[in-house]
Amino acid sequence: VVTLSARPLSGLPEVRAGDDLAALIAAVLAADGPSGQLRDGEVVAIAHKAVSKAEGAVVALAEVRPSAQARELASQTSAALTATAGSSPSAGRTVDGPGKDPRAVQVVLPADPDASARRLRARLRELTGARVGVLVTDSFGRAWRHGQCDVAVGCAGLAPLDDWRGRTDAAGRELRATWLAVADAAAATADLARAKDSHEPVVVLAGLERFVTVDDGPGAKALLRPTEEDLFR
Amino acid sequence: VVTLSARPLSGLPEVRAGDDLAALIAAVLAADGPSGQLRDGEVVAIAHKAVSKAEGAVVALAEVRPSAQARELASQTSAALTATAGSSPSAGRTVDGPGKDPRAVQVVLPADPDASARRLRARLRELTGARVGVLVTDSFGRAWRHGQCDVAVGCAGLAPLDDWRGRTDAAGRELRATWLAVADAAAATADLARAKDSHEPVVVLAGLERFVTVDDGPGAKALLRPTEEDLFR
Repeated sequence: VVTLSARPLSGLPEVRAGDDLAALIAAVLAADGPSGQLRDGEVVAIAHKAVSKAEGAVVALAEVRPSAQARELASQTSAALTATAGSSPSAGRTVDGPGKDPRAVQVVLPADPDASARRLRARLRELTGARVGVLVTDSFGRAWRHGQCDVAVGCAGLAPLDDWRGRTDAAGRELRATWLAVADAAAATADLARAKDSHEPVVVLAGLERFVTVDDGPGAKALLRPTEEDLFR
Repeated sequence: VVTLSARPLSGLPEVRAGDDLAALIAAVLAADGPSGQLRDGEVVAIAHKAVSKAEGAVVALAEVRPSAQARELASQTSAALTATAGSSPSAGRTVDGPGKDPRAVQVVLPADPDASARRLRARLRELTGARVGVLVTDSFGRAWRHGQCDVAVGCAGLAPLDDWRGRTDAAGRELRATWLAVADAAAATADLARAKDSHEPVVVLAGLERFVTVDDGPGAKALLRPTEEDLFR
């Protein structure tokens, strides 16, 4: 029996635009000694804000003029957007919040979170020698349910889905509707491991070796359901 | 830093109507020796099918005549229903699947999963002495996303939600939209720890002590969003 474990990394410095995030992570791991060392098959889950800040993915709120179409889209996706509307530190500056300060900035999603995950994976390999999976995560509201669970907005080297539909279980019975969203469950696990008030954007997951792949794989975009298939619309 | 861990229990026998499920779980744990022992503050997550089978929560498919309203509801909630339409063992009998055998039965949700969780919690306390949280879980489809993640349909002794909205983080910045669905994230974690083909309905989670409560608490029904508030409808 394999035990799944999630250990949050403490001590990561505040991330700034231009930072080498993989190097910051590797340095914190190295400071933990042998127990902190990354191992092949582990998964490094990173809250997207740290990735966005390193990439400079922020917008100045004073310059934002939402179009009618944007407002319509916002009303359709408000839960997902609300999830990104947390505290808004600019490059080195803390602000009271959007709307109060004309210099305020909002951290947005990385331009291509799967590409971010691939770059972070390659750089972590370079720095630590370990072949890990990388997840970029974000909070997500759910239909019909209160609260939020993190999901994967980017991934590399981790199978995003594990499809058992039509396969049989240990007793030879067909498993009709088992289609596990591995990357989303891993994101939820990482978030649960985190203490909310302690700035731990990075969590290392062990015990998911069976889902970690040699190739970068299809990324988290494989989790997105085309609108025309969506039973919820 | 607390590490979150999830260990699936292997060796649980096939559950039958009338079984004392808590006693079956306690016996498997005892067989593992001191390392298997339940500890105060751990959370026992149980896939609902094991609970349903013990409670005899099955329906004979030959007797089901869906009404027009039921068909309409089914089309609205098909992903959630599909998630429960897995393999369908009756009391001791394996069937090919719904529709093929007039004697086929379908495992349904326990009548009151929060009450099931409370009973299992009390019985585990009686048998092991440990004050744990108990989760009853089910697969759940998501709006806009492929695959499924488990959620909590019942819980006792675990805070289902951790509400940080309006509170401040370690740096004194307001956390605007942080409202973690603890019980759902714990359910997703338990499912991720499970090997899909190996019949492991029970997973023991450690590292969630901060969410485990003395009282049974409000249960998983606190996670349900009233329809009129739902942004997705």
